[in-house]
Amino acid sequence: MKTTIIGLGLIGGSIAIDLRKAGLATSLIGVELNKEHAKKALELGLVDDIKPLEESLDVDLIITAIPVNSIRTVLLKILDCIDDKTIVVDTGSTKSLICKAVSDHARRKQFVAAHPIAGTENSGPEAAFSGLFAGKTNIICEKEKSSSRSLEVADQIFEALKMRTIFMDPIEHDKHVAYVSHLSHVSSFLLGQTVLDIEKDEKNIFNLAGSGFASTVRLAKSSPDMWAPIFEQNAEYLSQALLEYIMHLQKFQYHLMKRDVNELHKIMTNANHIREVLNGIELKQPK
Amino acid sequence: MKTTIIGLGLIGGSIAIDLRKAGLATSLIGVELNKEHAKKALELGLVDDIKPLEESLDVDLIITAIPVNSIRTVLLKILDCIDDKTIVVDTGSTKSLICKAVSDHARRKQFVAAHPIAGTENSGPEAAFSGLFAGKTNIICEKEKSSSRSLEVADQIFEALKMRTIFMDPIEHDKHVAYVSHLSHVSSFLLGQTVLDIEKDEKNIFNLAGSGFASTVRLAKSSPDMWAPIFEQNAEYLSQALLEYIMHLQKFQYHLMKRDVNELHKIMTNANHIREVLNGIELKQPK
Repeated sequence: MKTTIIGLGLIGGSIAIDLRKAGLATSLIGVELNKEHAKKALELGLVDDIKPLEESLDVDLIITAIPVNSIRTVLLKILDCIDDKTIVVDTGSTKSLICKAVSDHARRKQFVAAHPIAGTENSGPEAAFSGLFAGKTNIICEKEKSSSRSLEVADQIFEALKMRTIFMDPIEHDKHVAYVSHLSHVSSFLLGQTVLDIEKDEKNIFNLAGSGFASTVRLAKSSPDMWAPIFEQNAEYLSQALLEYIMHLQKFQYHLMKRDVNELHKIMTNANHIREVLNGIELKQPK
Repeated sequence: MKTTIIGLGLIGGSIAIDLRKAGLATSLIGVELNKEHAKKALELGLVDDIKPLEESLDVDLIITAIPVNSIRTVLLKILDCIDDKTIVVDTGSTKSLICKAVSDHARRKQFVAAHPIAGTENSGPEAAFSGLFAGKTNIICEKEKSSSRSLEVADQIFEALKMRTIFMDPIEHDKHVAYVSHLSHVSSFLLGQTVLDIEKDEKNIFNLAGSGFASTVRLAKSSPDMWAPIFEQNAEYLSQALLEYIMHLQKFQYHLMKRDVNELHKIMTNANHIREVLNGIELKQPK
């Protein structure tokens, strides 16, 4: 399939590598506004050519991998310009606003609203690697609004990426990812900020921080360019999640100040159940 | 040196392995109230023998590796019973109350208040392994209250564990670890609780959680038996740290509800500085 990938960062770049590897993409055009990223993507051989958006749409497959605040505009532009043969797949981390934006478009059937859940705290074409998606979950929303041919193509793509696909309503999707993905990122960003704030003399952090701290705060290294728009688009659900998290922290602090060790112990024992959940996740990770 | 280790969990067990390996402990007695742990520790060969506390004190070196709420009582009992030759080292994660408890004891000089900062989210003798401490930081408090011979022995121990030792005031110690260690644990425990609460149908967590979530919530698997007493003993500083963390979360939520993406972006960009700090930490970890 002649393929165009819009956005050649960690996600777009990694998709390019694995679609080529699987023989699914016979030619690869990249659209990338960041000139340095474009140059790097070519150097790394992620794509065969870099072209402007308008010259990249006469292909079999278009995948967008750009920040969620740009997806709607770009997607509508694409759907306005393509002909019958082209299938369009997005990879955005929020789904409600994107699905709503294209809902009534004449070519809605040629579009598949997807969210392949994968990533690292690194970004840009140099962060891309083969296997990023392997063993992980892809979510397709509003499946009923895509044609069966579009879904077949999507199926081939996510199969090539070695992902398991599940289907969800966009609102349900946004709510769940607020808790299991977006909240983790916020908690990590602000843990980083809190510690940086207090430990003005950074030397002390170096000395005292164990690998536990490193693990908990790892996501604070994530790209603000990518995450600010995600948080904005998912503000309602993320805000709910944050308020709940804050409430739990405040309760904990209350018991702490009362030196109510039994209650603290109870809360932690309850949280320990996450172990079984994590065992599930770890089993899913490729070795 | 004839050595007794009190408490044969992750910390005590790992110390036993590496002191024997380094040839520093020529014989090893274990004191362990948990019968299963005692049996397991013998099976694993962590120690040569398990004995009651009273019969374990006629040795060259005693190391305590028990929950911080038990250390003070045990420590005073030990100091009351030992003769001139014995050096005592503790490994507790809080230092102010412990240092205060032994401050005026006639044998204070034979004691070294240490905190080798290392650990995993696992506990018990089976979690012990060689190299747990390698490349990490050990903190000794109130160095001036230990005799030079005590400090020499401590030096040999932490050298054998391949640790770097720094010196700190106990209050300064407790304050710093509240931010870089204890706060990480609380944030992780409560992130786990928040997500477990909302995602009653655990299947959804399995499906949606990426490895980012797994990393952030890893510490929620930690032992409540170990952490509840640490939090209690460090309640003042941990509470301060928690309040600051909560304040940052609330500010973030405020900007989120206002859809003030610029402000969110600014906060995250600031938090990104943790990258340089983490690079330092990761370099310190043994490969």
